[in-house]
Amino acid sequence: MWSACGGGVTAAPGFRAGAAAAGIRYQGRDDVALVVAERTCAAAGVFTTNRVQAAPVIVSREHLAGGVARACVINAGCANCGTGAAGLDDARAMAREAALAVDCPPEQVVVASTGVIGSRLPMDRVAEGIRAAAARLSPAGGEAAARAIMTTDTRPKQAAVRGHGVTIGGMAKGVGMIHPNMATMLAFVTSDAAVAAADLRAVVRRVAERTFNCVSVDGDQSTNDTFVVLCSGERPIAPEAFEAGLLAVCTDLARQLAADGEGATRLLEVAVRGAASDEDARRAARAVVASNLVKAAVFGRDANWGRILCALGNAGVAIDPGRVALRIGPLQVAAGGVQVPFDEAEASRLLGADVVRFDIDLGLGGGSGTAWGCDLTYDYVKINGSYRS
Amino acid sequence: MWSACGGGVTAAPGFRAGAAAAGIRYQGRDDVALVVAERTCAAAGVFTTNRVQAAPVIVSREHLAGGVARACVINAGCANCGTGAAGLDDARAMAREAALAVDCPPEQVVVASTGVIGSRLPMDRVAEGIRAAAARLSPAGGEAAARAIMTTDTRPKQAAVRGHGVTIGGMAKGVGMIHPNMATMLAFVTSDAAVAAADLRAVVRRVAERTFNCVSVDGDQSTNDTFVVLCSGERPIAPEAFEAGLLAVCTDLARQLAADGEGATRLLEVAVRGAASDEDARRAARAVVASNLVKAAVFGRDANWGRILCALGNAGVAIDPGRVALRIGPLQVAAGGVQVPFDEAEASRLLGADVVRFDIDLGLGGGSGTAWGCDLTYDYVKINGSYRS
Repeated sequence: MWSACGGGVTAAPGFRAGAAAAGIRYQGRDDVALVVAERTCAAAGVFTTNRVQAAPVIVSREHLAGGVARACVINAGCANCGTGAAGLDDARAMAREAALAVDCPPEQVVVASTGVIGSRLPMDRVAEGIRAAAARLSPAGGEAAARAIMTTDTRPKQAAVRGHGVTIGGMAKGVGMIHPNMATMLAFVTSDAAVAAADLRAVVRRVAERTFNCVSVDGDQSTNDTFVVLCSGERPIAPEAFEAGLLAVCTDLARQLAADGEGATRLLEVAVRGAASDEDARRAARAVVASNLVKAAVFGRDANWGRILCALGNAGVAIDPGRVALRIGPLQVAAGGVQVPFDEAEASRLLGADVVRFDIDLGLGGGSGTAWGCDLTYDYVKINGSYRS
Repeated sequence: MWSACGGGVTAAPGFRAGAAAAGIRYQGRDDVALVVAERTCAAAGVFTTNRVQAAPVIVSREHLAGGVARACVINAGCANCGTGAAGLDDARAMAREAALAVDCPPEQVVVASTGVIGSRLPMDRVAEGIRAAAARLSPAGGEAAARAIMTTDTRPKQAAVRGHGVTIGGMAKGVGMIHPNMATMLAFVTSDAAVAAADLRAVVRRVAERTFNCVSVDGDQSTNDTFVVLCSGERPIAPEAFEAGLLAVCTDLARQLAADGEGATRLLEVAVRGAASDEDARRAARAVVASNLVKAAVFGRDANWGRILCALGNAGVAIDPGRVALRIGPLQVAAGGVQVPFDEAEASRLLGADVVRFDIDLGLGGGSGTAWGCDLTYDYVKINGSYRS
């Protein structure tokens, strides 16, 4: 029904993007991105549930209350968080500047920031950057935008699908401080689909729960998490069909986020079935991908399955340790809660693959779910020991 | 009232300990310890709340239901967890073997294990080790016992205090998989105090809440966490006075646990005040010490205070970001939720000390609390990338 097509946030007709270098923190690369729609879109977003919320999150939440949006403006290098009332003024100024460039009310602009917490934005340079990005708006600008929102990301994250005569495309970024509980660091998806604002809000929430909220890089939920979807309404489609397409795009982006976690060398995919509910399954799967001990064992290619059992026991879900079964890739490692004889060399080989998959059966019910994470490496420590310098 | 005295788990009169090498996993060092009281003691313990519980935890919980105990038998190198019904038999066999050596009912023996999860104990060698440890029981055996229960610990952890005519002394171990939520990996405290079993149970629970449960090394709660206190009843003392002494011993042990976290180079002490309640303060403090991003910043001596703010926002406690104030040692870094000008070089120097202290004022109420952790280093990744090999 839905098939992958090239591109990202400008894959859908009617959307343009542009990027520019404002020198906020990085030199010699773009750090401001603008995404705009030809017409006013139905829009919905989900945001961090951290009690400390960045200024752009507060502003975007206000702006999306009406269920419509026309543009997104994003900067990298400064999170505009821990900046008090002045930071709120800065976020509103970003929205005004973008609105001028696009000719829409400031309330139709979504604002997002990512980078160091606790410092102010250099607003002169940011305003200039937004004007420069506006001058470069193009239907081919999706990749430039995806690159401009990167921080320690090693590659841009884009995904797009086409089906039912509709296109859905998006971009995301996220490398550390990634343990979303509503949305992930930053993800923007656009579509030409016609979806009512109320339907869109419910769809976005459900999809976030099954995609970005199932990713963990390091257990800390950022103050800036933002996931926003804009639908221009050109193409009619049933909400259920749209949801399936959005799920495909966001699953793809979520996997890309996990695989490019700070310092990561491997994508860890944990699928849980036999749980009491789907929610339990997702929670159990995320507890495994979030465990430092599991992550370090994957890095070391050590089939230390007891750590997986330990993480499951800490997940806060229904579990009977005597029923747990575990496979690393196709290799059975435990059944009935105890180890089964297995080939350690083969396990180590499987743990060294680019994608490491654990299949866990809790043996309790019909619930299933998947979570994505990455290994814990020397480079994670290195990157985060000197993030500001 | 209480003053530190030398020694550990045999500091109090009437307690002896011994250790022996059973070759469970380590060679050339003791890995079995026995602690015995001259007479039957009032005893209470708290255990892991991980839903996966090791066999010795299940057995010790049963044995302590009666509120009395005479001995503790502990092994390092194998957690006896994920071992099913056979593992339960092994834990009971350890209790029987220790009971024989001490001449008490097996129900008066507390059993604890630490090490790799998912493997069986070599019971022949363990039984022999218990007998050898029994042959070496001595009032001077506390340190040997503290060494025998180590896994990747780099040093034994002991503490003892004397006051009110009473002695309280203990030992602990814990290096990784440390994020207790009832007790810490393993901690054993003995005293000649006379405390009723019911009082003791309440005191142990409260003290655990303020000491071991405020430590985090890596966010994973072990399947084997055990904290047990034995009081021989020789010396009368008011329960409140006893509680203060036990708190002193356990605070000391908790700090030692945190300072010797896997790969740690620094002890991180986070004191929170101005919280809505003491419980909120402890939760907030522990959220900060548990954050990988904060821990890596401490390792890198980077005064990235925004990560502390982020961790506070994720702690699940009442917080008004606009009121948060933060000091690194004596250096004010933030106030009213925003950064204040500070000397980066001085901050970096303070972050390089053996003990790094953050003082956080939430500005909301009268609640206060402290938590202990350590930095996240390359060595944590190294140790846990190859724990079993």
